[in-house]
Amino acid sequence: MQLHLCAWPEVETYLKRSKGIVIPIGSTEQHGPNGLLGTDALCPEIIAREAGEEAGFLVGPTFNVGCAQHHLAFPGTITLRPSTMMAAMEDWIDSLVRHGFRQIYFLNGHGGNIGTIQATFAESYAPWSFDADPCPYTLKFRNWWELPGVMDVCKQLFPTGDGSHATASEVAVTYYGYPQAVKDVSMSPKIAPEGDFTDAADYRRNFPDGRIGSDPSQATPEKGAKIVAAAKKALIKEAQAFFGAKG
Amino acid sequence: MQLHLCAWPEVETYLKRSKGIVIPIGSTEQHGPNGLLGTDALCPEIIAREAGEEAGFLVGPTFNVGCAQHHLAFPGTITLRPSTMMAAMEDWIDSLVRHGFRQIYFLNGHGGNIGTIQATFAESYAPWSFDADPCPYTLKFRNWWELPGVMDVCKQLFPTGDGSHATASEVAVTYYGYPQAVKDVSMSPKIAPEGDFTDAADYRRNFPDGRIGSDPSQATPEKGAKIVAAAKKALIKEAQAFFGAKG
Amino acid sequence: MQLHLCAWPEVETYLKRSKGIVIPIGSTEQHGPNGLLGTDALCPEIIAREAGEEAGFLVGPTFNVGCAQHHLAFPGTITLRPSTMMAAMEDWIDSLVRHGFRQIYFLNGHGGNIGTIQATFAESYAPWSFDADPCPYTLKFRNWWELPGVMDVCKQLFPTGDGSHATASEVAVTYYGYPQAVKDVSMSPKIAPEGDFTDAADYRRNFPDGRIGSDPSQATPEKGAKIVAAAKKALIKEAQAFFGAKG
Amino acid sequence: MQLHLCAWPEVETYLKRSKGIVIPIGSTEQHGPNGLLGTDALCPEIIAREAGEEAGFLVGPTFNVGCAQHHLAFPGTITLRPSTMMAAMEDWIDSLVRHGFRQIYFLNGHGGNIGTIQATFAESYAPWSFDADPCPYTLKFRNWWELPGVMDVCKQLFPTGDGSHATASEVAVTYYGYPQAVKDVSMSPKIAPEGDFTDAADYRRNFPDGRIGSDPSQATPEKGAKIVAAAKKALIKEAQAFFGAKG
Amino acid sequence: MQLHLCAWPEVETYLKRSKGIVIPIGSTEQHGPNGLLGTDALCPEIIAREAGEEAGFLVGPTFNVGCAQHHLAFPGTITLRPSTMMAAMEDWIDSLVRHGFRQIYFLNGHGGNIGTIQATFAESYAPWSFDADPCPYTLKFRNWWELPGVMDVCKQLFPTGDGSHATASEVAVTYYGYPQAVKDVSMSPKIAPEGDFTDAADYRRNFPDGRIGSDPSQATPEKGAKIVAAAKKALIKEAQAFFGAKG
Amino acid sequence: MQLHLCAWPEVETYLKRSKGIVIPIGSTEQHGPNGLLGTDALCPEIIAREAGEEAGFLVGPTFNVGCAQHHLAFPGTITLRPSTMMAAMEDWIDSLVRHGFRQIYFLNGHGGNIGTIQATFAESYAPWSFDADPCPYTLKFRNWWELPGVMDVCKQLFPTGDGSHATASEVAVTYYGYPQAVKDVSMSPKIAPEGDFTDAADYRRNFPDGRIGSDPSQATPEKGAKIVAAAKKALIKEAQAFFGAKG
Repeated sequence: MQLHLCAWPEVETYLKRSKGIVIPIGSTEQHGPNGLLGTDALCPEIIAREAGEEAGFLVGPTFNVGCAQHHLAFPGTITLRPSTMMAAMEDWIDSLVRHGFRQIYFLNGHGGNIGTIQATFAESYAPWSFDADPCPYTLKFRNWWELPGVMDVCKQLFPTGDGSHATASEVAVTYYGYPQAVKDVSMSPKIAPEGDFTDAADYRRNFPDGRIGSDPSQATPEKGAKIVAAAKKALIKEAQAFFGAKG
Repeated sequence: MQLHLCAWPEVETYLKRSKGIVIPIGSTEQHGPNGLLGTDALCPEIIAREAGEEAGFLVGPTFNVGCAQHHLAFPGTITLRPSTMMAAMEDWIDSLVRHGFRQIYFLNGHGGNIGTIQATFAESYAPWSFDADPCPYTLKFRNWWELPGVMDVCKQLFPTGDGSHATASEVAVTYYGYPQAVKDVSMSPKIAPEGDFTDAADYRRNFPDGRIGSDPSQATPEKGAKIVAAAKKALIKEAQAFFGAKG
Repeated sequence: MQLHLCAWPEVETYLKRSKGIVIPIGSTEQHGPNGLLGTDALCPEIIAREAGEEAGFLVGPTFNVGCAQHHLAFPGTITLRPSTMMAAMEDWIDSLVRHGFRQIYFLNGHGGNIGTIQATFAESYAPWSFDADPCPYTLKFRNWWELPGVMDVCKQLFPTGDGSHATASEVAVTYYGYPQAVKDVSMSPKIAPEGDFTDAADYRRNFPDGRIGSDPSQATPEKGAKIVAAAKKALIKEAQAFFGAKG
Repeated sequence: MQLHLCAWPEVETYLKRSKGIVIPIGSTEQHGPNGLLGTDALCPEIIAREAGEEAGFLVGPTFNVGCAQHHLAFPGTITLRPSTMMAAMEDWIDSLVRHGFRQIYFLNGHGGNIGTIQATFAESYAPWSFDADPCPYTLKFRNWWELPGVMDVCKQLFPTGDGSHATASEVAVTYYGYPQAVKDVSMSPKIAPEGDFTDAADYRRNFPDGRIGSDPSQATPEKGAKIVAAAKKALIKEAQAFFGAKG
Repeated sequence: MQLHLCAWPEVETYLKRSKGIVIPIGSTEQHGPNGLLGTDALCPEIIAREAGEEAGFLVGPTFNVGCAQHHLAFPGTITLRPSTMMAAMEDWIDSLVRHGFRQIYFLNGHGGNIGTIQATFAESYAPWSFDADPCPYTLKFRNWWELPGVMDVCKQLFPTGDGSHATASEVAVTYYGYPQAVKDVSMSPKIAPEGDFTDAADYRRNFPDGRIGSDPSQATPEKGAKIVAAAKKALIKEAQAFFGAKG
Repeated sequence: MQLHLCAWPEVETYLKRSKGIVIPIGSTEQHGPNGLLGTDALCPEIIAREAGEEAGFLVGPTFNVGCAQHHLAFPGTITLRPSTMMAAMEDWIDSLVRHGFRQIYFLNGHGGNIGTIQATFAESYAPWSFDADPCPYTLKFRNWWELPGVMDVCKQLFPTGDGSHATASEVAVTYYGYPQAVKDVSMSPKIAPEGDFTDAADYRRNFPDGRIGSDPSQATPEKGAKIVAAAKKALIKEAQAFFGAKG
């Protein structure tokens, strides 16, 4: 079930059997010469929707712009300041809690969001902690590539050059979801360098085409299908355990 | 062209010929018994993407959650506080301006966003006005149903019961875009009442099933197609004029 | 009754018979060569005070600086950022609600405030909507020139050149209130151009003396008196209906 | 000169001979059984306008609502949160600096504003201090009752019972400015108690009719005239020295 | 008792006999050629800890960075913006109130903090005042040099050149606390000039070595000991009265 | 060198040879029955000061209150909301950058700070990324227990029961630094349970005495000395590499 394709009475009915929801959360940022700007939002969206369809849990709208200041030197990147992202996530959470959702699971597609997601959870719990009232809801996030079993599939598909940004894996997942957007671009060097970065200028100086450690020209829709299958299976298991735990 | 399906070099190339972009902006909120929670985000998204495809302009990711506090008494509604929405829109704008975009056109799908969009534009221009530097970019928004010619089509299709919330027109547009989500629900009363509201409790008390003045059971994908065709045509004309005006 | 000229026991007594208050809200911004910088604050203040005197309702202090970033290229203009205005209006509202006021009616004198006022109302209602408690108060605003019957008088007095900024009508209202401040300035061109604007630099480039579409040299105290009479009558009727509706 | 009664070209001309402006700043809060809710805004407004008229300097609009949370238990009090007041004052300052004002003098009418005014000044200077650019403007505030010579007059007029809130002096100043608002109320006890307070409930518990240490039934318009005369003279001297110092 | 050296059960036990706590609050900012950057935080910390040890009350961690924008032209100065300091102080207060503390006494070491501390107290009380609930806690601050009897000792020790920034007294207190940090620096001029300042550039222009009106080369650990003894005694008396008053 | 014990000319001199500084950052929160409330601030402070003394680099004041909302059910805990912590850290960073510091190294003592520190770094870099100016400074943080070699020592000293909160290691470090604060408390159970938590109520329900997975009764000053020695050595190496890298 996708929340944005439901009418409100369908959500009302759903809440009678489950208090859980999955929110795909990502970023709109450069993903190298052949990766989609939407990669980090599309990956968790694709996985969550397939899982929700199969397992019958609700998937919310995608939080599609995240923390990507370090990618701003590449056209098309859109970022929130971390403080803005915290405010927006809090409003989403408060809205869902208003309706009775009690387990909110963010399936995250972007490493750069992690700190801000953690800070948001603490910000959201803080008023309850100050007031000494038990908080009625539980927040959880998971990076899709850390779902049990997923990295094994990725390593098998891409023994070298999976990398850490614009990875072959994530590009493959989006190619699976959007085969019409597959881009045939030759990479130079074949595998991009590794390293650190600070702001946008520093990032582009170190990583001229945007990739870090990856050769995403290896990505294909078929490989993406395998990753999605593994991720979907793991997500269903984990989400059901989470939803059931305090349901 | 959809920004989230482009790689960054494609956006870099685009910026050489145009500084304009269309951002669909809407809301995730109840739309009555047969309308989708995503209606207000999906309508401008559907129209903008078709128009961008035909005319070759860039369409950004959809700003899919807006100002919907008054719908929170209906499950599934997600809202931003207006102050949060302003911060988020400013970050989107600042990101796009960073890349050289100079005409940013928000195609809006939600009446409840209008005040906040206007406030955001003033907030975005204010630093330039304080500093006496000319602002290099222009912001514009348009409610899709006010695009020239669209209301004529809607009135023709729905002589009665188009209404002002959960309108037959907007439901039809989403049914055109998502025929798998068409819902067959009988309406009672046939046409919902009209009136005012303040907060969420007041809204639900006045409008028990969420509709205002509408009979959206009239909506069909076919009627939606006609509305989208009219809107697409008008959007292309207006966006091209806007992008060209200061390009 | 003017709140700032009452002692607190008088307000306490008033609250026993009415929960309604009118707050004049405007702007301090250029109004062309012969219009007062205070025009947008003075117009609703003049009208509200006369109406309050006649009908016996309470008129609060004037919110005299609003959203005027686009006028900052003209000396004397003072603006709040929209986000600041929202915070300040919320504090006024919270203060009034604390005392038991339940219908708060903002009589607005500035088109540029409208979006921010709407956003503020949504921001003010939002905590109630999130908490599922019915909000105990109702907020309303009205642009004074849209009070029933007022535009008819204005059009009759100024068949041409009333315009949309530094209008003959609003200048006339302030000349009625402050005859000592009448300024005799010749206009060139007689009627100012019409058009759009973004930030302050853009505004002044397009409208060099600050007027839009108007010839305010037509304004006189006598004409202002007629407008105020019409507005006062309409405001009394509308405010009484509003205060009574939920009183 | 009163800014809100000038047209913008008059301010432009003024700025050629002076970069200084006086802003009356006060509060809207209870002032005991016979004092006006507007007392703290009206006192500096009355004094500043008379002084500006005589000496030819510009007087801005009155910042009429300040920090009065501790008076909220008395109907009619309106307060800003200190953080809101800081944001609003900063916007006023930024607007005036935009036009070329370089000495901004706040004539304050409310002791409860002092801390927030000081904090605002530091907040306004901070960006310059962080950036190592010299700040081009100077901010100053003065409580009107601390203008040289004023307290002498007050003590002479009210040897006992001038007090520290709802003082005989401040009530007299407003009675001078608004003789139509003089209120004949007997005080019990004759002189109110002295003491401390925290929030609004604590204040009203300690000071049931709102006064602290005062017997404002001694106030008359005639006595107010003497105070205003002394304050006007001192303000002119101090403002001219301030405006000239860095002009 | 120092809170940061206690385990939580010790604080739990303490709260059974007292609801009071002392928080040293200061600044990290230049204090002239021989004064420590930590002077304004160390002085109240030294005094409060000795007093807490002797009298058995709890002393919290030191709020060690305050409002020092005007000192930023001297290396080593660290400042909070006033608005940040308010938010941080509020969080400290809310935390302590959560545990049952009811009298929170800030022992302040920096004149530049005063306005912001006052604003914070009003900001902290405001929600209670808006809600009409009595606030359960009381906030108080005291500048250590204004504790009864302290200035007498300082004047006796430093008949001339105690000054108003980088005073001989405060440097002596830190030398007493940190004799290993005594610095032998000759002052030129012997006594620094007096005067006003705005931002950091203005401050350093007026006071090239950072001192205002002082000759801190007179400071010795022995003199510091005398000041601390006087301050400790006064603090114990005042804190006990405060803690007992509403205990 | 400890910044708060330096006079400003000493910092000015230091900046001629190094642009690097270490800031200890921690938390004030319960650490079980025998751990100090200041543990997470004291550990990095102790290590950084010893390292700075030996290697000659500057150590700033300790950021002593962090993100500890989940510990608020235990008396003595003080927390900042994550958003407050971000604002405060930004002000510290901006102050240091103002003076010419270019490598700012936060030595962190609290796992709960990690997300917020990461978010702060992104927030600090964001304006540079939006403006396309290269950011002149680099931010880095390191949890002291993850300094190379430290965990090996800890595991050797505490083969079982080091745990994840109120660890034997961290308690030992503070006992080394503050032997007068060693507390002899028996633990029950000997080793605390492991698990997750959300808000403060949830934490205390799951971990009644505050520990997670640890038996800190094993801590002694002597063991702490060994950990500090290892951490000091590793910190010197890492800080020098960092300061030198872009010095």
